Amino acid sequence: MSGKALLYSYWRSSCSWRVRIVFTALNLKEIPYDIKPVSLIKNGGEHHSNEFREINPMEHVPALHIDGVTLIESLSIFQYLEETRPHRPLLPNDFVKRARVREICDVIASGIQPLQNLQVLIFVGEEKKNEWAQHWITKGFRAVEKLLSASAGKYCVGDEVTYADCCLIPQVFNARRFHVDLRPYPTILRVDRELENHPCFRAAHPSNQPDCPQEIAK
Amino acid sequence: MSGKALLYSYWRSSCSWRVRIVFTALNLKEIPYDIKPVSLIKNGGEHHSNEFREINPMEHVPALHIDGVTLIESLSIFQYLEETRPHRPLLPNDFVKRARVREICDVIASGIQPLQNLQVLIFVGEEKKNEWAQHWITKGFRAVEKLLSASAGKYCVGDEVTYADCCLIPQVFNARRFHVDLRPYPTILRVDRELENHPCFRAAHPSNQPDCPQEIAK
Repeated sequence: MSGKALLYSYWRSSCSWRVRIVFTALNLKEIPYDIKPVSLIKNGGEHHSNEFREINPMEHVPALHIDGVTLIESLSIFQYLEETRPHRPLLPNDFVKRARVREICDVIASGIQPLQNLQVLIFVGEEKKNEWAQHWITKGFRAVEKLLSASAGKYCVGDEVTYADCCLIPQVFNARRFHVDLRPYPTILRVDRELENHPCFRAAHPSNQPDCPQEIAK
Repeated sequence: MSGKALLYSYWRSSCSWRVRIVFTALNLKEIPYDIKPVSLIKNGGEHHSNEFREINPMEHVPALHIDGVTLIESLSIFQYLEETRPHRPLLPNDFVKRARVREICDVIASGIQPLQNLQVLIFVGEEKKNEWAQHWITKGFRAVEKLLSASAGKYCVGDEVTYADCCLIPQVFNARRFHVDLRPYPTILRVDRELENHPCFRAAHPSNQPDCPQEIAK
């Protein structure tokens, strides 16, 4: 473990937010880190620069420099942190419960977020982007609600914070941005309420990031 | 471990194929299983039936019934099999190499496949679907090629088959279906060639599935 970690992040990126929660929420892993903001807006997107493409060839945030290496993809970063920092685990011990956590992560990370991320919406076009995002978030949340109805305790899977919560909360924020009606998803809403005022989940919130525009920051 | 596993699968689904490779390729995990075909075409798609929605609320294949529980999401299934059947590992021991495997899996499973899967292409429309699929596969393969240029040995990460190979090979098949020019990706093509005639990877191939239409099957 060499030096302080550096997280390449954009304040409103839900995938960056997932990783920020792991670092900051509950001081979950107690890993000191700095944030390097990467604007997805300025100059056509700093993530498309030659410099950033060397850090992440997918031209996405987050990327994480840690232990002398650069890692990409939020769920892969979760696993690396879990394996190298097994204290304060964010996965249950039980094999099936671990699968339940990962299923929820994967449904969000493969089934919802990729279809409503900024790059895809630019390609879909201004006129259709809201309808498009609502369609896929609604489809995904129907499934997540069903999964949570079987797995949730206080949080997504049982009564301890897991990686599933780190994926769900940012996705609920995105759902609200696209004006998705969340009333059909009472378990999602309950878990979101449970965590929204948690001081450590708040620290990772977009509105508390150094690169959040001043008129939006709280 | 109770009884034989049952894999809900569609012959041409790349996500089903990933899991079939784990079961069959190299007899990687030596887990006896049966296949239950779920047609994504017949009757508007059997994955949209009420019966299948109880198995997987995302209405995707694959789903896996094993050890008395039903699991969904191919990457989550990989992790469950790795944790419960650690013999013949499909992840390296080294933490950073494990991250490299998972990054490649995640780039494909979150950054490419979701944008060219059948349900999304139906929504995109017949007229634009080829251009759409080519765009996202090309963008993703540029990143995968860059990742492989640093990680690949004989296979995606080093000289042993890993989950990254189980994700890559089906995605290359999809790229060919959409007539993506693969010449700019020499490392992807090399790994694909390395595995295409491997008898066990062949067993998992769409053309060797019980539900593959006879005019396509080899």
